[in-house]
Amino acid sequence: MSHSFRNDYSSLCHPRILKALEEFSLEQNITYGLDRHSEKASEYIRKIFNTPNADIHYLVGGTLTNVTFISYALRPYEGVIAVKSAHINVHETAAVEASGHKIFTVEGKDGKLYPEDVIKALKANTDEHMVKLKLVYISNSTETGTIYSKQELLDLAGVCREFGLYLFIDGARLGSALTSKYNDVEPELLGTVCDAFYIGGAKNGLLLGEALVINNPDLQDSFRYHIKNRGAMISKGYLLGIQFEEAFKDGLYFEIAKETNNVADYLKEELNKIGYETPNSPTNQVFVTVCNNLGEDIIKEFDVELWEKKENEITIRFVVSFVTTKNDVDNLINYLRNYK
Amino acid sequence: MSHSFRNDYSSLCHPRILKALEEFSLEQNITYGLDRHSEKASEYIRKIFNTPNADIHYLVGGTLTNVTFISYALRPYEGVIAVKSAHINVHETAAVEASGHKIFTVEGKDGKLYPEDVIKALKANTDEHMVKLKLVYISNSTETGTIYSKQELLDLAGVCREFGLYLFIDGARLGSALTSKYNDVEPELLGTVCDAFYIGGAKNGLLLGEALVINNPDLQDSFRYHIKNRGAMISKGYLLGIQFEEAFKDGLYFEIAKETNNVADYLKEELNKIGYETPNSPTNQVFVTVCNNLGEDIIKEFDVELWEKKENEITIRFVVSFVTTKNDVDNLINYLRNYK
Amino acid sequence: MSHSFRNDYSSLCHPRILKALEEFSLEQNITYGLDRHSEKASEYIRKIFNTPNADIHYLVGGTLTNVTFISYALRPYEGVIAVKSAHINVHETAAVEASGHKIFTVEGKDGKLYPEDVIKALKANTDEHMVKLKLVYISNSTETGTIYSKQELLDLAGVCREFGLYLFIDGARLGSALTSKYNDVEPELLGTVCDAFYIGGAKNGLLLGEALVINNPDLQDSFRYHIKNRGAMISKGYLLGIQFEEAFKDGLYFEIAKETNNVADYLKEELNKIGYETPNSPTNQVFVTVCNNLGEDIIKEFDVELWEKKENEITIRFVVSFVTTKNDVDNLINYLRNYK
Amino acid sequence: MSHSFRNDYSSLCHPRILKALEEFSLEQNITYGLDRHSEKASEYIRKIFNTPNADIHYLVGGTLTNVTFISYALRPYEGVIAVKSAHINVHETAAVEASGHKIFTVEGKDGKLYPEDVIKALKANTDEHMVKLKLVYISNSTETGTIYSKQELLDLAGVCREFGLYLFIDGARLGSALTSKYNDVEPELLGTVCDAFYIGGAKNGLLLGEALVINNPDLQDSFRYHIKNRGAMISKGYLLGIQFEEAFKDGLYFEIAKETNNVADYLKEELNKIGYETPNSPTNQVFVTVCNNLGEDIIKEFDVELWEKKENEITIRFVVSFVTTKNDVDNLINYLRNYK
Repeated sequence: MSHSFRNDYSSLCHPRILKALEEFSLEQNITYGLDRHSEKASEYIRKIFNTPNADIHYLVGGTLTNVTFISYALRPYEGVIAVKSAHINVHETAAVEASGHKIFTVEGKDGKLYPEDVIKALKANTDEHMVKLKLVYISNSTETGTIYSKQELLDLAGVCREFGLYLFIDGARLGSALTSKYNDVEPELLGTVCDAFYIGGAKNGLLLGEALVINNPDLQDSFRYHIKNRGAMISKGYLLGIQFEEAFKDGLYFEIAKETNNVADYLKEELNKIGYETPNSPTNQVFVTVCNNLGEDIIKEFDVELWEKKENEITIRFVVSFVTTKNDVDNLINYLRNYK
Repeated sequence: MSHSFRNDYSSLCHPRILKALEEFSLEQNITYGLDRHSEKASEYIRKIFNTPNADIHYLVGGTLTNVTFISYALRPYEGVIAVKSAHINVHETAAVEASGHKIFTVEGKDGKLYPEDVIKALKANTDEHMVKLKLVYISNSTETGTIYSKQELLDLAGVCREFGLYLFIDGARLGSALTSKYNDVEPELLGTVCDAFYIGGAKNGLLLGEALVINNPDLQDSFRYHIKNRGAMISKGYLLGIQFEEAFKDGLYFEIAKETNNVADYLKEELNKIGYETPNSPTNQVFVTVCNNLGEDIIKEFDVELWEKKENEITIRFVVSFVTTKNDVDNLINYLRNYK
Repeated sequence: MSHSFRNDYSSLCHPRILKALEEFSLEQNITYGLDRHSEKASEYIRKIFNTPNADIHYLVGGTLTNVTFISYALRPYEGVIAVKSAHINVHETAAVEASGHKIFTVEGKDGKLYPEDVIKALKANTDEHMVKLKLVYISNSTETGTIYSKQELLDLAGVCREFGLYLFIDGARLGSALTSKYNDVEPELLGTVCDAFYIGGAKNGLLLGEALVINNPDLQDSFRYHIKNRGAMISKGYLLGIQFEEAFKDGLYFEIAKETNNVADYLKEELNKIGYETPNSPTNQVFVTVCNNLGEDIIKEFDVELWEKKENEITIRFVVSFVTTKNDVDNLINYLRNYK
Repeated sequence: MSHSFRNDYSSLCHPRILKALEEFSLEQNITYGLDRHSEKASEYIRKIFNTPNADIHYLVGGTLTNVTFISYALRPYEGVIAVKSAHINVHETAAVEASGHKIFTVEGKDGKLYPEDVIKALKANTDEHMVKLKLVYISNSTETGTIYSKQELLDLAGVCREFGLYLFIDGARLGSALTSKYNDVEPELLGTVCDAFYIGGAKNGLLLGEALVINNPDLQDSFRYHIKNRGAMISKGYLLGIQFEEAFKDGLYFEIAKETNNVADYLKEELNKIGYETPNSPTNQVFVTVCNNLGEDIIKEFDVELWEKKENEITIRFVVSFVTTKNDVDNLINYLRNYK
């Protein structure tokens, strides 16, 4: 069977992560995330992301992290601003709403949210008969693999500060964003530009786990109560601590992301060479529009996702994962070259 | 001070409602809605709306009725389809989301939802990573005073049946809809075309109160538990029962609505006579677009709501209430005639 | 049919309340509780209860008031301390839990909560794996009609202050407490001894309505958003404002309560005279223990509530209401005298 | 440092579990729990627990599993019956209440719930002003390590069936229960005696993961939507599938539990030999009551949990884990022998 280009979380983990687990497999640890591995990982993260006073919590999934943080940050009558295509709005089975909060959507552009979107949202909700908007949710890289520039993040932070809104960055694919060759955001910026963000593990070579980094001290009190209250605290917190310690002690996290982006860049180049355009694909998600027949055959052969269907053509999404090799790309390219 | 045309709930109640309360003011009643007045009212309503097996519950407000019913009808992961301008989406401070449910919005047209909107919504939510859509919410008359035709309701009911969706009709202004001269919906249709609807009291001359009529027997079990669980059960349920008994024993409810619509029609005619257009105003909400200066002066003088602001003109909304008289209309028209 | 001694909310309202409604029945008012009647009522209440900076909101029922306030005051992981017999714990169909909060119950004594109960509760919940207790809920008069002394309230307030807990007083029957001949609590104390309390209307001669008084300025921000978000804001807020204005402009509220307590005292005296004991009945709830046969006959004849069943005897509860007269009491006493 | 007897989840996992992860570490899998490993694991479980039509879902923690299932099984106004010491009542930071449901507690005996407790609970909640009890929650082994006999489970199931209640068994420590030498419950009983149960992984040598087995077909529909809606669906579901496949393909799960119980039995025997009683300790939790000084020293040296403090003595809990050896026990016994 051919390599699957469906997503970046179809394989367990990077060999070094597994090796770290082996190393500590019979050790006895303090439980519920208070272990030395988690603490060490947090030290690394605080330093790399320039947020010395951050509280860091390790949670087991992206949706759970989004819901746990958002439902903590908001009062019952407060809501979220997000773009329509946001993961929390489309792909989390209304988990945020299930925690009691409305997501007020705006159009955005290329999967990104801009200051004018925020202002438009605020203008549409003016009094106590409407939701009180309080938190801006973005992801980087976004649902469609696009990335924010440094200036875009600073502008968004500015409008949030002006109107007393929290800025929260979903970093399920933060690695792919920060190591894209189009990126100009330093990790240090994350520690100051937003109230909280998270560093995705599952989509970047870890077994599972997201590191939620809360920069804003006003959003730190009793957070562990909230994690447990949401059912999101696992007994063996050190399972996450060990992985993040390994990922950040010497740059493994960024290496994995960088290498994945490299393979994605190689894929784009090879596709371009044989005449396929790959617009708006700065990270490990590569979008190609082809005629229906070819598209359906690729979907079957390489298990890729159908992204959008138009009358005579379809857009498909290739996702490069940490297990994807240049060889896998070559096989795909050969398939395309030899197609009919 | 001039008569206010801001809304249809700025005055306590129709004299006959108050008289009924006087009549029973010292009587001892069974509490929590199990009294003889509520029962009598329900008999009238079942007959008028042709729904002999309906369960009827009297609740104290529109938002509370919407939330109580919707959160009963849905499982935690299920959501609502509604037009963007829907009251539950815009003007209830995210109360439905606070009860845990997403509202998936569609564009609709003139404040109304059509079968193609439903199908579009279903097509956009296809698997367990997205909200499971289960209930279609409409209001009649709508937020902007438009009304559904019999055929439109039947078509909507058809698509709901086809896809296993509940149809719920918010009738906060049901009286104004059913007594509009453009209306072709018989009250009897409400008993069969939807799973549940409610009959608004507060906007039609009652002190307060909405009669929730649950046609679908699958949505009746233990509903009183749910009312109490949502904090929506009042001890003196007979306060609502007495009012609805009075409203439906001999047609008062429709009389009030009809008379209100008559005054609104008079307003439209008089406005038209002096050159103002009143498009899309089949019920007691009358929309007029005027230049900025005039608009602002009318707002000040007659306390009307600014509906929409464009560059050089504004649309204002006149709402005719059960206390509005033709004399009040004449004063308004004179004001306009004599305006500078 | 004999007078019912089942509860104090089986009749609509005191004649003066109805008269006030008549007076303003066709007046046009500002809606959603921002009217002049509500403001006037709040001025009276602030003065009488010595809480010049309180925010006051008028809500339509006791359960809704409890849930709205508690769910506002607490973060998601925080809980309530209350006695087992508390209304919120037993008689509100888990409405507080439905808003997401645990009620941690303690035994208390005679329906009342004491500082040692609070301390015991705190000692039992020590870390983030247990609920974080944050609010103490009591009612005055209590579920069983007992009342708190001034010293008891001060002591409870002391322990709450010491441990950073909110003190919230459910005053659904505050009138009966403050006008009991055993009471030593001045209304002024309510303005300072707790973070919030409410003044019950429905059980003291009003149609419906509870006045929630929030003393603590930290618990006032955006509360109207929360009311609406809970579905608890009614359009005709002035319906409540008019009633509370009437009730507090010249002491009517306390007069009604006092007169009700007087009739209850008369009932107790007459019962005592003919040999029935009425222990622990300082307000308008009168408990009598009789043999089974008599008890069941009284229940049938006077529609009273069976409070507790033991092997050979039962305790029944007589509730005196604002419509109960000495004549009604005399009829009951005669019945007992003549009972074979 | 001495071996810690604090709990059974302080070490990552059994070597065979890690080996299975290594074996499949770079394989590409279907995501979100629909992979072949999860399917294989479910086949084994269906067979072992005699529940051929069960739906099985793998979740990441005990609290999350409890909340996800309970909030699925119940309507908003329904509640849970559990003993006071139940994990969901004491040690989950009110997560069940946060999902909207009341836990109505009963005393039980030795951490276990009996039919008479259920009946008492039902008798205390009689109408729509009280919570509607619908689900009985027990755990086996219980919070204090006690276990249910076959007859006790059958009796409980009987009363649940009689009153239309669901029976749900928290099996966070199901292995320790079923392999206790005092146990007479066959795994096959679990497939029929309850509506749902789960098989704990984290406390029995797996990295993390609980297998929720839903026997009752009425509680299976759309459950995956609910998992996602609660934030409980992880992308790499096969991480759990691989572990449960390994645990159940040839009996590893029961071997680990059996061996752990054996070491616990050895600990009890050795303790008894030197004069310490170990009452009520049929599984891997061993309770010993000692004088204060000794107790505190043991707590320091072996990191055990203080279970209960009385005036002159304290009860401490030793928990034997899959990494605890007889040698660790010997060290403890030596320490006690030599204690001055």
